[in-house]
Amino acid sequence: MRATFMYGAGDVRVEQAPDPVLERPTDAVVRVVRACVCGSDLHPYHTMPASDEGTPMGHEFLGVVEELGSEVAGLKRGDLVVAPFAYADNTCAFCREGLHTSCPNGGFFASGVGGGQAEAVRVPQAQGTLVRLPVGEDSELLPSLLTLSDVYGTGHHAAKQARVGPGSTVTVIGDGAVGLLAVLSARRLGAERIILMGRHEVRTELGREFGATDVVPERGEEGVERVRELTGGDGTHAVLECVGYMSAYEMAVGTVRPGGVISRVGVPQYEEAPVGFSSLFGPNVTLTGGPAPVRAYIEELLPGVLDGTVEPGRVFDRTVGLDEVPEGYRAMDRREALKVLVRP
Amino acid sequence: MRATFMYGAGDVRVEQAPDPVLERPTDAVVRVVRACVCGSDLHPYHTMPASDEGTPMGHEFLGVVEELGSEVAGLKRGDLVVAPFAYADNTCAFCREGLHTSCPNGGFFASGVGGGQAEAVRVPQAQGTLVRLPVGEDSELLPSLLTLSDVYGTGHHAAKQARVGPGSTVTVIGDGAVGLLAVLSARRLGAERIILMGRHEVRTELGREFGATDVVPERGEEGVERVRELTGGDGTHAVLECVGYMSAYEMAVGTVRPGGVISRVGVPQYEEAPVGFSSLFGPNVTLTGGPAPVRAYIEELLPGVLDGTVEPGRVFDRTVGLDEVPEGYRAMDRREALKVLVRP
Repeated sequence: MRATFMYGAGDVRVEQAPDPVLERPTDAVVRVVRACVCGSDLHPYHTMPASDEGTPMGHEFLGVVEELGSEVAGLKRGDLVVAPFAYADNTCAFCREGLHTSCPNGGFFASGVGGGQAEAVRVPQAQGTLVRLPVGEDSELLPSLLTLSDVYGTGHHAAKQARVGPGSTVTVIGDGAVGLLAVLSARRLGAERIILMGRHEVRTELGREFGATDVVPERGEEGVERVRELTGGDGTHAVLECVGYMSAYEMAVGTVRPGGVISRVGVPQYEEAPVGFSSLFGPNVTLTGGPAPVRAYIEELLPGVLDGTVEPGRVFDRTVGLDEVPEGYRAMDRREALKVLVRP
Repeated sequence: MRATFMYGAGDVRVEQAPDPVLERPTDAVVRVVRACVCGSDLHPYHTMPASDEGTPMGHEFLGVVEELGSEVAGLKRGDLVVAPFAYADNTCAFCREGLHTSCPNGGFFASGVGGGQAEAVRVPQAQGTLVRLPVGEDSELLPSLLTLSDVYGTGHHAAKQARVGPGSTVTVIGDGAVGLLAVLSARRLGAERIILMGRHEVRTELGREFGATDVVPERGEEGVERVRELTGGDGTHAVLECVGYMSAYEMAVGTVRPGGVISRVGVPQYEEAPVGFSSLFGPNVTLTGGPAPVRAYIEELLPGVLDGTVEPGRVFDRTVGLDEVPEGYRAMDRREALKVLVRP
């Protein structure tokens, strides 16, 4: 089969690779019908050291079950399924608490197992991981359903961890796909006011359609001032940080209301950050978030996608074939594309 | 009157000072019946630069109302009252959300207003701040009632912010008065297992009586290993950090369960700390806490003190008169006393 590998910063190649096969009785093999490129794929695209050995890429996909291990129940060949970016057994104590990303039998796609930017993938813990989709391979809903594998669930995680609910005021930092779906999620959970911090007009316009009540294009101290002006000086109950850079963390500290929550889902590109009396402690600000256990959210989010209440798939603004995946990375890196859909 | 002032590290003096008077119609003047020395008073006791001007000390007291401003309702001269360490109007948006420490009309005793280690104190925002106690000046409950001004409410805040409830597993870092009352609070909220990290045996023994199921005297990496052994390798749902040093923060990161909460009430003696993928983000750990809005908790905690269900006043193991307050600081600094009660 063909699959995508990264050999270093800026070096993405689509190559022949061995067809995935069942390795354990809990595995499945899935033929990929739709995959995509993630904003977090751009971090190694900027920083990965050059190597002779390629790293498989892609952790978001939906597809058709082709083979099933002997211990996988509840699925059959031919089922159209979506995979969360972290596979998990869905039965352990952590999964029962909704924290599938910490499952001791779990892991991440494209990390010790193949990636989704490929013709097929081996899925460990298939019974706990894959969720059957009640539509056909030709459904127009596929882009929105694909967002259940990561970006929609991640935006929802940001809002949920920040305890967004009816009446909440929310700042969303970042106008990438996750930021826009954090807006959609905050609206879905009943937020009263949603301030989107972003400067890419096509994106912030989509953010308004998803539910943003205000857009703040300014960054840094100037952006913080604008949000404070909009909120009577206090900031917002929740700040959903969907970027991952220290500058975004600093904006989050500046825009959160005393007693509020900063919820991070952008993968932090730093280890140390201010958390002392003058940043988090004095105003009793809570810092939360992490890799989203999206498997925990699929049952809750799926109905709204199927009935068209929400259209998270609108974040895809370009579609490529598998051979064009390297061009998809370039387009996202140049911010010419918001999020690139892959049809292998 | 006589009052306590600090003139620099290790330099505490009891001196004559002007009697407090009403300055605003929302003030009261309270004659202090009981006060105490706080673990947080030891931070300036270690680090305050020498000065010719003394800083008033003490933020925990109960006493008798002597004078009332014209706008104070609900209190009368002669009432025995307890004051939370932060005064507040108890009517603004922040107070209504239970965050009295962020009240725009509020502040802290011994900071711009007199301290409680004195014969009398002016209390701003008296109506919102003071809570009447239905006992006499000679009640044996006074030490326990005094803990409502800070340490009991602070221990409760740690547990509450960490979402401690029935079935929770909890690690408490620190065997000072706040740590011990965090143990008591976690037990009161239904925690199933409470591991107290502390090495001062008299204190950890009191911790066991307050509800600790395990005591870990080891510190650092060794202490983390012990807690992990006790919890099947996973750590505890909640970690209540009642110290404030970076070493305690690091132990908190080491002992918290994935998906769990680190709740800090020890005033951080650092500004930057690890919060990235390998510390908080990867395992979806939440960091919360801050100065406790103890005013918000007095109504909830008072009945159990009055009926003897809990005896938080057992943290006091030495009593001094006002003139002996400097010796009280010395005793707490040398860890000869756990917490010093002051009878002016």
